[in-house]
Amino acid sequence: MIETGRRSAGPIRLTDASAVRLRPATGALITGGFWAGRRAVNRDVCVPEGWDRLHEAGNFHNLELAAARVTGDYVNDLPFLDSDLYKWLEAVAWTLDDPDLGSGPADQLLRRLAESTELLGAVQQEDGYLNSHFQVRFPGERFVQLPWGHELYCAGHLIQAAVALHRSTGEDGLLAIGRRVADLAVRAFGTGPGQVDGVCGHPEIETALVELYRETGERSYLDLAVYFVDRRGHGLLGDGRFGRHYWQDHTPVRDTLTAEGHSVRQLYLLAGVADVYVETGDATLLAAVERVWSEMVATKTYLTGGIGSHHRDEAFGDPYELPNERSYCETCAAIASIHLSWRMLMITGEAKYADLLERTLYNGFLAGLSLDGKRYIYANPLQVRDGHVASGDDGDYVRVPWFRCACCPPNVMRLLASLEHYVLLSDEGSLALHQFMTGTYSAEVAGGEARLAVTTDYPWDGAVRIRVEDGPDAPWTLALRVPGWAEGAGLTVNGTAVGGGALDGWWRVERSWAAGDEVLLTLPLEPRLTAADPRLDVDRGCVALERGPLVYCLEGVDHDGHRLDDLVLAADQPLVSAAEDGELGPVVVVRATGAVRGRPAAAWWPYGSAAAVAAPAAEPAALTAVPYFTWGNRAEGAMRVWVPSA
Amino acid sequence: MIETGRRSAGPIRLTDASAVRLRPATGALITGGFWAGRRAVNRDVCVPEGWDRLHEAGNFHNLELAAARVTGDYVNDLPFLDSDLYKWLEAVAWTLDDPDLGSGPADQLLRRLAESTELLGAVQQEDGYLNSHFQVRFPGERFVQLPWGHELYCAGHLIQAAVALHRSTGEDGLLAIGRRVADLAVRAFGTGPGQVDGVCGHPEIETALVELYRETGERSYLDLAVYFVDRRGHGLLGDGRFGRHYWQDHTPVRDTLTAEGHSVRQLYLLAGVADVYVETGDATLLAAVERVWSEMVATKTYLTGGIGSHHRDEAFGDPYELPNERSYCETCAAIASIHLSWRMLMITGEAKYADLLERTLYNGFLAGLSLDGKRYIYANPLQVRDGHVASGDDGDYVRVPWFRCACCPPNVMRLLASLEHYVLLSDEGSLALHQFMTGTYSAEVAGGEARLAVTTDYPWDGAVRIRVEDGPDAPWTLALRVPGWAEGAGLTVNGTAVGGGALDGWWRVERSWAAGDEVLLTLPLEPRLTAADPRLDVDRGCVALERGPLVYCLEGVDHDGHRLDDLVLAADQPLVSAAEDGELGPVVVVRATGAVRGRPAAAWWPYGSAAAVAAPAAEPAALTAVPYFTWGNRAEGAMRVWVPSA
Repeated sequence: MIETGRRSAGPIRLTDASAVRLRPATGALITGGFWAGRRAVNRDVCVPEGWDRLHEAGNFHNLELAAARVTGDYVNDLPFLDSDLYKWLEAVAWTLDDPDLGSGPADQLLRRLAESTELLGAVQQEDGYLNSHFQVRFPGERFVQLPWGHELYCAGHLIQAAVALHRSTGEDGLLAIGRRVADLAVRAFGTGPGQVDGVCGHPEIETALVELYRETGERSYLDLAVYFVDRRGHGLLGDGRFGRHYWQDHTPVRDTLTAEGHSVRQLYLLAGVADVYVETGDATLLAAVERVWSEMVATKTYLTGGIGSHHRDEAFGDPYELPNERSYCETCAAIASIHLSWRMLMITGEAKYADLLERTLYNGFLAGLSLDGKRYIYANPLQVRDGHVASGDDGDYVRVPWFRCACCPPNVMRLLASLEHYVLLSDEGSLALHQFMTGTYSAEVAGGEARLAVTTDYPWDGAVRIRVEDGPDAPWTLALRVPGWAEGAGLTVNGTAVGGGALDGWWRVERSWAAGDEVLLTLPLEPRLTAADPRLDVDRGCVALERGPLVYCLEGVDHDGHRLDDLVLAADQPLVSAAEDGELGPVVVVRATGAVRGRPAAAWWPYGSAAAVAAPAAEPAALTAVPYFTWGNRAEGAMRVWVPSA
Repeated sequence: MIETGRRSAGPIRLTDASAVRLRPATGALITGGFWAGRRAVNRDVCVPEGWDRLHEAGNFHNLELAAARVTGDYVNDLPFLDSDLYKWLEAVAWTLDDPDLGSGPADQLLRRLAESTELLGAVQQEDGYLNSHFQVRFPGERFVQLPWGHELYCAGHLIQAAVALHRSTGEDGLLAIGRRVADLAVRAFGTGPGQVDGVCGHPEIETALVELYRETGERSYLDLAVYFVDRRGHGLLGDGRFGRHYWQDHTPVRDTLTAEGHSVRQLYLLAGVADVYVETGDATLLAAVERVWSEMVATKTYLTGGIGSHHRDEAFGDPYELPNERSYCETCAAIASIHLSWRMLMITGEAKYADLLERTLYNGFLAGLSLDGKRYIYANPLQVRDGHVASGDDGDYVRVPWFRCACCPPNVMRLLASLEHYVLLSDEGSLALHQFMTGTYSAEVAGGEARLAVTTDYPWDGAVRIRVEDGPDAPWTLALRVPGWAEGAGLTVNGTAVGGGALDGWWRVERSWAAGDEVLLTLPLEPRLTAADPRLDVDRGCVALERGPLVYCLEGVDHDGHRLDDLVLAADQPLVSAAEDGELGPVVVVRATGAVRGRPAAAWWPYGSAAAVAAPAAEPAALTAVPYFTWGNRAEGAMRVWVPSA
């Protein structure tokens, strides 16, 4: 049990030389409220069940095959099954930090961890190579199937798990395995004689190598990350069936203007580029990330923070191509976006990154996990039509226990298990609270460590209470992020209103803080109607309901007997919030006034003059909107975020 | 040379017992006007170049491999390459009917036909089996890879080519080969002992077998078609990666309520079901086709007549899911839709089928071929964004000379080459002119054959002149289709206006016609603004420009310096038609008044309050719309059919 925060550093531990404005908290612990609930589900359901799923899906079997402990065929034809285990191991690492884990479950996780590490050690070859898919299906082949082979992608996830376990448990068994994998890559890749000059079809190892460098101080890992960033975009991977953008090999990183291709690959790469910038200070890299992020957010991001418009190649669409029924919005892409936003927030200190992080976390990401923690969804649509027909995609719009391509579930687990690190950052003069989660958080400021206790029912309630628990005597600044939507936010210190308001998204209060000082930030949570940039054709004439950081949606199950396609929202009528505690658990729903549109007279052809297609008189209807992250938990059926408005 | 029409029956030759309201013309010849131009390109460019493309793409090589005449590997991993050749052979058959072909080109086609027939005869095995993919790659395997193998699909196209060549040349060499293929299928498939109880993953053979029955009188071919229709929808193909709807195996045909799955498969199946209905009179089949057609047209069809909303599985979307940027609208699906509409028009006599046939022909289909006949497009989007990034699909939104999966080009060729059959139908008392193409057309009515000469500049001009060339003395009815959009159409007979107007889409004039009688149908071709059913979210707040049967679009190349995404059309301003003869050849363009919308102030995030996303004042702009079928012929770049309206 830890009293005031976490024992371990989180997914990012900077060096003294890291080029950032803000640094991770030194202690963080989520102790209650909304996210404690989601994290309890992760700890008690997702992570334990993950072990079973990984066995059922063949991930362990494949590794045992590679260790020559069993016989049979490699299960599944996807080459990256090892990475599912690695992400799960990373989730285990962070879960072990949870003071509410309990000793029984902790012992079980430690046994499973030891068992996994032992197996991986047995699979690893003399020179460090470790990949069940290649060892079983292509023995002796190494780094020759770079476009589709995912060898370095798997290696990256292994390294991240190893670093996480080293930080949370102090154990260095997996770290040693991970280092040997990394050392092999250092020897194998480069432009030197006998080396492979290439990059992986799926970026991921870049950010892992930077973190391994941070963890070990071994410079060659950073150098290899730099090499991979430099060599990408030179056509080393060939065209492939989806074009070079698919694997981010279409332009050198520094020349890239737009977010393109496979969205998870794009974002993992950008996170790695940001990490390389942080440790090298190469400003051309930072400029590239900022440029691509801005283009992506302005033209290729859904209201939920989700990204990816194409199912076929899991790719970004064109600018403003954001189809609601076919929004891909892979859960992993939301996670990758959160990774990137967090990095850019540290680098720049700009609140917009925390705004997008929050939006993605509460909506595009959280919708990926069922409320009971037992089912996942791969693609997160913003609309499911009445009469939807699943097209055979992995779970197509229905939550399922696991996927054939199971990248998302353990990715959800590792983010939830490490979420406390995504709350507070600091610089030498200030603590920057950018997310609002009940818990205790501490960071270094000039003069010593300052510690805060945060209490809030956010996102249901807009009051965020921050108590200074401890801190140096000298003045320091408490910087509270005020989200872009929070017009009219208020702040009191020890009951006295503070003026000034937010500047560039931060409300800063500098003073000599004393233990016991109480700050109350009040964020207005009136439901609001949101419209879209007029270039977003699919949302034209529609509004979305939002409340605080939450995007809302209509579900067929709440509108009995009506097709959602026939509903219209009356934008001039009041919206009413109502707290409920039913099948969805404690939530605030939003009620609106609307109408059921009649069916146009036009008989067989759905196009014609304005008069021909005009709907006849509408009947009034009461609309109920639920938080987007809760959709699809009660029943299959229609859903929509954007609602035609009258 | 034929004086008054075609020598051969077209793709459908009914039996005396066929259950139809209308029957194909006995003679048809397109002699001038719009379609003569498109057909000349087909005859002089597409069909001759098709021979070269089929050699370059390996189709002949694969057959020569199967005939053991060459060595090497099967080219391309798709199993249906033979069918490309078969469709090309069918196009050759109909092209040989063209009186303007010329003796040199005719001789060349006949030589190529003979060469192909000889090769196919050499490939065909003792028992009739003929499939280069299976003979080369899976020797001895037959009808065991039904879900993906396309064996019966290929057989169907072979049979159609054989029937076409028999009709156009009288030659029965290919017909004999086709019959042996069909006879093998008759022996192999069924529920008897030793037979395969199964259906092909890709419907197509059904309609071919019915036509072979009509051509030969051999009842077992019809019986096999009935069997395939009956056995579909019982899960014989398994689930597959895209679900059972993908291959139309999710519900028995008679129980099907909605158009689902792979759109070409759905429509080829429906055409086959319609054919089986015609020869069996099984009304439950007709009811199913009518039901699915109605649902498809009302909720899953684009303004262009194109169908298919998903790239990933080439499938229909959900009801009202018709994304403009990702409209799949495969050229083959448009062709299949035309096949079905034609059949349903014969069966029911209802003009709506001719309306959709026309719309699909002039738009969704015709856009699939470049103006010069040298390039094809696979997917026909209704919108290409500024900044479009091709995602590696076969030619993704750019016209190319051929495809790896080259189903569309020879399909275009066979439809264009047989187009004269899609103009006139008849029953015992009337001639029904349902398409407007300059030429001569004849049909049987009570008392003898009646013959019409049609002269028109349609679709550029709305005057359609019909001269009675010959006919029996007894009264008969001339039925002229008046398209649904043609409000205010006029009709004169020998210069005298005729009243009454159209009823259910047909303007019928019954009289004792004399040779030399002149009828003038005048269809109003004022440009018009079209809106969409309000459930079609993506078109909300937009209008499309149409003129006569043509859908129009904006192209970036005509709006220099502006992004199409920024343009708005002023719906209250006049639209002006202008005839031009430039890079697009002779066309009528439509000019409209519009504006260039400013960019909203909202900085990094494209969503917000209505005020935040409202565009600042717009600058006036002149908009130019071109016929949709001409898009993408001048330059790559943005295009859109649906334009935001103010």
